This record gives sequence, structure tokens and C-alpha cells, in this order.
Amino acid sequence: MIHITFSVFQNHNITGKIVIFVEKWEGYGTTVRYRAASRNEALRGAAGVLLKSVTPFSISSPHTGSGGRGAVIPSACLTIEEAEMLQRMYKRGKKLEIRMQIKSREVGKCTSRNTIFDIKGSTYPDEIVLLSGHMDSWDVGQGAMDDGGGMAVAWNALNIIKEMAKKDPRFAPKRYVSAPVLKTKCLRTLRVVFWTAEEQGMLGSQAYFKETEKDSLKKFFFVSESDQGAFKPKNDKSAFHFMGTRAQMKVLDEIVQIINDHNIPLSLVQSNDQGDVQFWSDKGVPSVNYVSDQGKDYYFYFHHTNGDYMTVFKDGDLDYVTAIFAALAHVLGNIDHW
Amino acid sequence: MIHITFSVFQNHNITGKIVIFVEKWEGYGTTVRYRAASRNEALRGAAGVLLKSVTPFSISSPHTGSGGRGAVIPSACLTIEEAEMLQRMYKRGKKLEIRMQIKSREVGKCTSRNTIFDIKGSTYPDEIVLLSGHMDSWDVGQGAMDDGGGMAVAWNALNIIKEMAKKDPRFAPKRYVSAPVLKTKCLRTLRVVFWTAEEQGMLGSQAYFKETEKDSLKKFFFVSESDQGAFKPKNDKSAFHFMGTRAQMKVLDEIVQIINDHNIPLSLVQSNDQGDVQFWSDKGVPSVNYVSDQGKDYYFYFHHTNGDYMTVFKDGDLDYVTAIFAALAHVLGNIDHW
Repeated sequence: MIHITFSVFQNHNITGKIVIFVEKWEGYGTTVRYRAASRNEALRGAAGVLLKSVTPFSISSPHTGSGGRGAVIPSACLTIEEAEMLQRMYKRGKKLEIRMQIKSREVGKCTSRNTIFDIKGSTYPDEIVLLSGHMDSWDVGQGAMDDGGGMAVAWNALNIIKEMAKKDPRFAPKRYVSAPVLKTKCLRTLRVVFWTAEEQGMLGSQAYFKETEKDSLKKFFFVSESDQGAFKPKNDKSAFHFMGTRAQMKVLDEIVQIINDHNIPLSLVQSNDQGDVQFWSDKGVPSVNYVSDQGKDYYFYFHHTNGDYMTVFKDGDLDYVTAIFAALAHVLGNIDHW
Repeated sequence: MIHITFSVFQNHNITGKIVIFVEKWEGYGTTVRYRAASRNEALRGAAGVLLKSVTPFSISSPHTGSGGRGAVIPSACLTIEEAEMLQRMYKRGKKLEIRMQIKSREVGKCTSRNTIFDIKGSTYPDEIVLLSGHMDSWDVGQGAMDDGGGMAVAWNALNIIKEMAKKDPRFAPKRYVSAPVLKTKCLRTLRVVFWTAEEQGMLGSQAYFKETEKDSLKKFFFVSESDQGAFKPKNDKSAFHFMGTRAQMKVLDEIVQIINDHNIPLSLVQSNDQGDVQFWSDKGVPSVNYVSDQGKDYYFYFHHTNGDYMTVFKDGDLDYVTAIFAALAHVLGNIDHW
């Protein structure tokens, strides 16, 4: 039984059958819903679920991902090639017999720990400018893109700020600064967090948020994340996805202009998807989520595959995104107020 | 031991070692030489050979291909990701220990047969306009692109000519035709050949050439091939690669213009690479080899991989290339002379 849309699906008796989803790619946010459907709908009597990998492009590339959680029937991803072949056979009226042999088990819970780096603020040490990425990945590939790159650029942004301030006292952007700035410090604390257990549903950031929830608005001046590939921006479709007030957006727009002045294309757009830092965004803390133009389709060529290797990053990718986050953190660490 | 260029390679003692080639992609024709090097150079005492897959792009995609023939040591392809990881480890001074476990054997020779379709010519049945593709493929994928598509468009071009002539008597292009044209026929014989054993080194076309060699110039009015992906042409970098005289090129240029007039971009360029029909080209029979703009880099994303599935062909690919070959065959089947 092969299904293209949920509405078609409702009218079929799937008891004892293997349900195969051969969904169209309509962008990750839309298409990934079919993974959840594997769980929700197939439990209505299906024997198993097969899903075309959630990707716009394939070289016989299976993509894994969450979706089967809580299911009591086997569920797996097919490559685009395999799924479309089954669809062609089905359309020709062939009887499809598939045997699924899947070995998997839940290994139980264990403790994982977020990793936190700080450069203590000189004047407002209790106000935090937060950069972040997540340190867990799927079992396929190296997790270089999802999300080794996010961690690398966040950590390196702090490192660069520290190193540049040592070498060049003029590094503090005077037009934003009214208080004296120590050579190696910003006014505010710059914090990098490597989240754990993002792939299981942002468990690391959620736990950290719960710890800090009481005074989160007071404590966090700004939060940010990079988890859609630390690819250098190639055009003005690369953007900070922003949540916050109009006044805060105006300040961020000035920072984007500084970055643009250095010939780095970047836009600022409003968005409700802030990834791991969404917990704070929802409480009113201003935030950005970095999404390069390649973070839309191209990122999903490699997402949750054996192709998520260091090889995805080309010359300059990590350096450019480091520069963007360094500029962002340094300015926000030193401005008087939003 | 990791090698980038042949010249570096010459100065190393490789006895008892596994040689890993991490070559740069410089286009297929150039880069594929490293596969032959696996055989030729590694026999100088090496224990085995690993080669970065000959491709410009990878999603953890191994590519197979000839190269190890005649070698007495194991030889295999790595994905780009694996090869570049080993290179990074090597550059960091890591000691690399690799165990190769490869099962392969030569199963001996057997008979294979070219498949030939004819539409007999009405006036010059002994003059042949030949279209071709090859029907064998590697053991990976379906061989849809390499070269199922080439066969499909060649066969379908003949089919379309036959069907259109039945329906539309005006189909014969009068300005080229001096003799009366029967409704379902061209003046010359149109022949399609599906070659066998191209992947083993063009054995099928070579055998056929040897059979016909004696009067090949007299018998073959024109020969052609499509073995670089039957992708529809998207821009004027898509071309017939041509071998022949200036006068013949002028005729082909007129055909290309007819195709262009129907909003299909196509160019005509000189080239010495005619694939399976090279045997005839070298004897002076005019020929073209169809190479779409996607036949250069993009084709090699899937070439000799598990991604060589029907999925590579998008809407219109096979139809457009069929149209190109049908126009080509029909005009050449009916012109008075070169």
C-alpha cells in the first residue's frame, strides 16, 4: 500500500499491511511531518512503515531521523530511489511483498551534560549573550554538519574575540560603547553552550532552560543558535532568523549592516523557529537562528546521513560563520541597552 | 601512504603498503586515470590500493569502475568522505592501519549479443544512419542513466519517426528530400544498436565493427551515440560532440538549427571522444556523441553508483533527447548527400 497524501491515507484499510509513504519534498518543515505520521497513523493496525527519506536529493542516500518513538511496529526510511521504484511498481499494478528485518532497541536513559564556556563580562557579568550549537548527532556520519559546525563557530567566535582584543585595543566598537572596555572582555558575559540530546527533542536545552527559567528575561540579554549548517552565506537569502521586539530588530539590523559592510551577504528576517533557544525566545528573550542560503535545501542533502562528514564544509565556511557570530556577540556584549 | 599526484608517488617506497589515492576532481576524463594507476603503479610492490571515488560530489557515495583488471592485489574505491578523512588523519601524523576485506572473482567469459533494430530504407537500404546506446551496466544501481537512457532514446527515436509518418504525410522534410518518401520510411535505413559489454571496454561495438569493417565507410552514412546521460539540454553548453569533415559539420549544423528553432538549446562542437562508435569515426564515418550540460559534472554524481536509478531522469529528459535523435535520424535518413 503506497500513500502520497494523508487525505488519501484516511480511506484505506491498512490492517496487517506495510504502509509506504512516498511523499513529495516540500521543504523540511512540511515534509518531515510524514515521519511523525509513521507513528501516529500507522499504529492504526499497520504491520510496519516505510518512508521515503526526507530529502530533496539522493544518491541512493538513506536518511534517518526521529518519528518512530512510541511505535510498537517497525519503521524505517527508504532512499528516494527505492521508494519511487516501489511507487512505479505499485502504479503498474504489481503486487508488492516486502519483508522488513530491522534490529533496534531502546537502550534506556542516561545522564548527558551541556558544555558551557564563558568570557565573564567586565561591567554586567550577570547579563548573558549566548551562542549555541548542539553536540549530539545521529549514529550515521560524523555529525560534522549537524551540528559539529554549530559548536565550532560558537566556540571559535569567543576565541576570536579574546584573541583580537589582546592584539588590537581598538577592537572594541567605540560607537556602541559608553563604558570603558577591558582589553580582553566585553561589558556583558559571553557564553557558549553545546547542548546535548537535541536529536531526542532538545532535552539538553530544555533542562538548562528549566534551571534558569525563573529569571531568564533578566539574566539572558540575547540567545542564538546555529543548527542548519555553518555554511558561509553566498547571497542575501542567507539570514538571521529573528524573534523579538521591533526595537531589538533595529539593533540587530545595524549589526547585520556592519557585517554587510565587510562584504558578507546576510539578511534579517522574522521567524518563529529558533531551535534550541526557542524556550527563551518564547519568554521574550531576543534571539537569532542562523540559516544560510544552503541551510534550506542543500543542508538536507546530508542531514542525518552517512554524508554528514567534515567534507561538507568547504574553504571558508566555518571562518565566515565564525566571523558573523563574533561580530554579533561582540557588539551585543558591549552596547548600552537594546 | 596517501598520494595526491603521480609525480609525488614516484618517489615513495610502497612495498607492502596500501596505497590510497586522494586525487582532485578535474573532470572525468582526467581524473579517471587514477583508476588505471591503481593497476599500473600499485603493482610495484603495493599490498593493496584504495582510490577516492571518481566523482565531483558525494553523499557518502562509493563509485565503482574498471581499473583493477589484471591486478593481482586488491583494489577498491572509497567515498570522498572516507578518503578525505584518511587524508586529514595522515596530515595530522596519525598512523593509519587499514584491513582490506574484499571478495571478488573473475567468472570467466561468456557470449553476449548486440541488439539491432532497423527501419529499412526505401531508396538506399544499404546506407545506414545509426543511433546507439549500451545495454550493459555495472552491478550497482539499475543502470538507468548508464546507459538505459541512451537505449531508450535511440529506440524511441525510431518509434516516433514511424508513428509520426503514419499520422502526418508532411512529416518528411521536403526541403531536404528529392526522391519520393514512403509514408513510414526514410530513404536510408535507420538502425538502432544496443551494444553489449561497453563497461568491459566496448567489446560489443568492437566486435560489430570488426564484422562490418571492410565496407564500413560505404555502408555507414552516419553513426551516433548517447552514453553520458539522456538529460534534456538546458542551455547551449549541451552539444553534439562531432567528428567528421567540415562539409558534414555544416549539414549537422543545419540540423542543430532546426532543433534550436523548436526552442531546444543545442550546440555542435568538435570532439575526439565518440564512445562506442569511435571505431567508425576513426575510419572516417561522420558521427556525433550527445553530451548535455548535465553530462559533464552532474552525470558523474550517479555514474557507477547505487544512485543510477530511473529517478535521475526528470520530466521531459527522455522525451527531449528522443526528439533530438529523431530529428537527427530523420533528416540524415532523407538528405541527398553530405
